[in-house]
Amino acid sequence: MKILITGAAGMIGRKLAARFAGDAALSGTPIDHLVLVDVTPPEAPAGLAGRVETKATDISNKRDVTGLVAGRPDVIFHLAAIVSGEAELDFDKGYRINLDGTGYLLEAIRAERDYRPKLVFASSIAVFGAPFPEAIPDDFFHTPLTSYGTQKAIAELLIADYARRGFLHGIAIRLPTIVVRPGKPNRAASGFFSSIIREPLAGEEAILPVEESVRHWHASPRAAVGFLLHAASLAGPQLGARIGLTMPGVCCTVGEEIAALRRIAGDRVAARIRREPDPMIMRIVEGWPRRFDSRRAIALGFRAEDSFDEIIRAHIDDELGGRVAA
Amino acid sequence: MKILITGAAGMIGRKLAARFAGDAALSGTPIDHLVLVDVTPPEAPAGLAGRVETKATDISNKRDVTGLVAGRPDVIFHLAAIVSGEAELDFDKGYRINLDGTGYLLEAIRAERDYRPKLVFASSIAVFGAPFPEAIPDDFFHTPLTSYGTQKAIAELLIADYARRGFLHGIAIRLPTIVVRPGKPNRAASGFFSSIIREPLAGEEAILPVEESVRHWHASPRAAVGFLLHAASLAGPQLGARIGLTMPGVCCTVGEEIAALRRIAGDRVAARIRREPDPMIMRIVEGWPRRFDSRRAIALGFRAEDSFDEIIRAHIDDELGGRVAA
Repeated sequence: MKILITGAAGMIGRKLAARFAGDAALSGTPIDHLVLVDVTPPEAPAGLAGRVETKATDISNKRDVTGLVAGRPDVIFHLAAIVSGEAELDFDKGYRINLDGTGYLLEAIRAERDYRPKLVFASSIAVFGAPFPEAIPDDFFHTPLTSYGTQKAIAELLIADYARRGFLHGIAIRLPTIVVRPGKPNRAASGFFSSIIREPLAGEEAILPVEESVRHWHASPRAAVGFLLHAASLAGPQLGARIGLTMPGVCCTVGEEIAALRRIAGDRVAARIRREPDPMIMRIVEGWPRRFDSRRAIALGFRAEDSFDEIIRAHIDDELGGRVAA
Repeated sequence: MKILITGAAGMIGRKLAARFAGDAALSGTPIDHLVLVDVTPPEAPAGLAGRVETKATDISNKRDVTGLVAGRPDVIFHLAAIVSGEAELDFDKGYRINLDGTGYLLEAIRAERDYRPKLVFASSIAVFGAPFPEAIPDDFFHTPLTSYGTQKAIAELLIADYARRGFLHGIAIRLPTIVVRPGKPNRAASGFFSSIIREPLAGEEAILPVEESVRHWHASPRAAVGFLLHAASLAGPQLGARIGLTMPGVCCTVGEEIAALRRIAGDRVAARIRREPDPMIMRIVEGWPRRFDSRRAIALGFRAEDSFDEIIRAHIDDELGGRVAA
C-alpha cells in the first residue's frame, strides 16, 4: 500500500508518519511506500521497512500536486492547511492553500484514469459558527465566522461531490481543538489551550488570555492520529452522502482544565498560569462552539478521551517521558 | 445608480431587466445605467430612461468579468448559472461557470479600491439534500446531492466570507422551484412542474414523469423578481453573518397543482396531462426537499404567493394576456 500525507511536517502529520513506521500497516494492509509532503521538508520517520519519500512543496503548486497524485497513492491524508489565525490575517494565502490547493488535489485525482483513492481530509469544528444550539448535531448548518472555517466547509462540500461522482472515496473528519500540542505555539487563536498545560508542566509560565468560564471541545494528538487511521478504514460507499463527521471530544471549561492540571501535577505547577485577558482572543473565542453531538462518529467507532485528565496524561506520557517539572 | 445583471438573457434576468425599465428605480434610487450580461446576447428592455449596455460573455471569462466590475456597479444581481440537470451532465462546465465564474466576480470586487457594492446572489434550495427534517430551517446543514447544489452552497459560503471581510454587502436568496416558467423548457430536472401547467393552458399536451404524490416548494417568476428587488434593499450589515435565506413558497403536491389547474381552466385543459413515469427523473426528485421553514425571510419582508391557484393566475396574466386555450 502507498500512502501520501500532505502537511506531513505538521504536528499531526509527524505523529501519523511515526505511527506508520511503528505499525508498518494501515487497516491490516502492509505499507510499502510512504510519501511525505510539506512546505518545509518533512523528516522521514525512523524504522519504516518500506520506501519513504519526502518532498518540500506547496499544496498550491499545481504541477507538483499533479505529480504526487500521478504516483497513485492508495490513501491520501490531506492535512496541509494554513491555520485559523493566519488564514484570517492573510486572506490570499488562506484561500490559495486551503481552497485552491485542495481543489488541485481533487482535480488531479479526477484526471487519473481508473483511479479511486481514499481521501481522508482533516476538517475542523471551525466550519460551524455562532449562534449554536445547545449541542451541535452533524446536520447543523455550516455557518463559519472565519475565512479558515469557510475554506474547510467548502473543501468538505467539494470532497462530498467528488465522492458522490465516483472520483474518490472521501471522508472529512472535523477535529476538535487538539491539546496538548507539543513544541512551540503555532498561529492558531486556540494556542492558549495547549500553552496553559504545556508550559507549566515544563516549568515555564503560561498566559491565559480568556475567562476560566470559556467552554470548548478537545481531544489529544494521540486521539487525532487514531481518528485519521479509523477514518481511512471507513472511507467508502458505506458512509453515504454525508462524508463530514464531527469527531468526539471532551467538553470542559478552562477552569476545569486548570483543576485537572492541579490534580495531576500539583498546585505549584498550576500556579504558573498568569491571567492576562486579551480582548481580541476573547472576541474570537466568543464565536467558537462549545459542545457537539458526535453520536454518529461514536457509532462508527471513533474514540476520544473521556476526561481532560486523560488528555493531560497522554501529553505527559507521549511528550515528557512521564516526567513533570515540579 | 448603476446595476449589473449576470444571466440577463435568462428567464428571471429578462423579467428583472423589464421591471427596471418600468420602475426606473431600485429601492427609491433612480437607475441611470443598466448593464446586462449573458453568454447569449441579452436584449435591452424597452423604455428604460437611462443608459443600457448589453454584453455577450461567459462569466468564466476572467478578463471580461474584471472589466465589468471595474465599471463599479452599485448593485450586482448574479443570476448566471448552469442549471441543475446540465451541471450534473457536464461536471467541468458546471464548476467552471457556477464556481470559478462566481469566484472571479468576487475577486474582481475585492480588487477594486474603496468599493463595496451590493451583491444579490440567486442561490437554490438545491443546497439542501435528503434526508430532511419535516420542515427545513435556515440552520439545517448544507448537504447537496447534486453538483449544482454543491456549487450554489460553496458560492453562499464565499459570499458570506467576502461580506464578513467587508469586500461587499452580500445576500444569497435560495429560490424555490419557479413555476410557471414561460417559453421552452430548459435543462433543469424540475422542468415538468412548469410544463404540466404551461402546455395544457396553451392547448398542448404535457408529460408528467412523476407520481401525483410528489410534494415540492414553488413560487412564480413574478415572486422571484420581487425577491431579488427586496434582497437588494436588504443587503448590508443588518443581515448579520447568515446571508443565505430560504425564500417563502407554496408547498403542494403535483396532484394539488393539477387540481388547481382544473379549478382555473377546466377539465378539458387538465386532461392534456399525460402520465409517463420516468425512473431517472423520479430518482432525482426523490432527493429534493418538500417544505421549508422560511420564517426569517418572511420576517424580513419577503413574500410569495399564498396558493398554487395564484401561481397559475400570475402566469395567465403575465404571459398569456389573461387568455387560456380552452
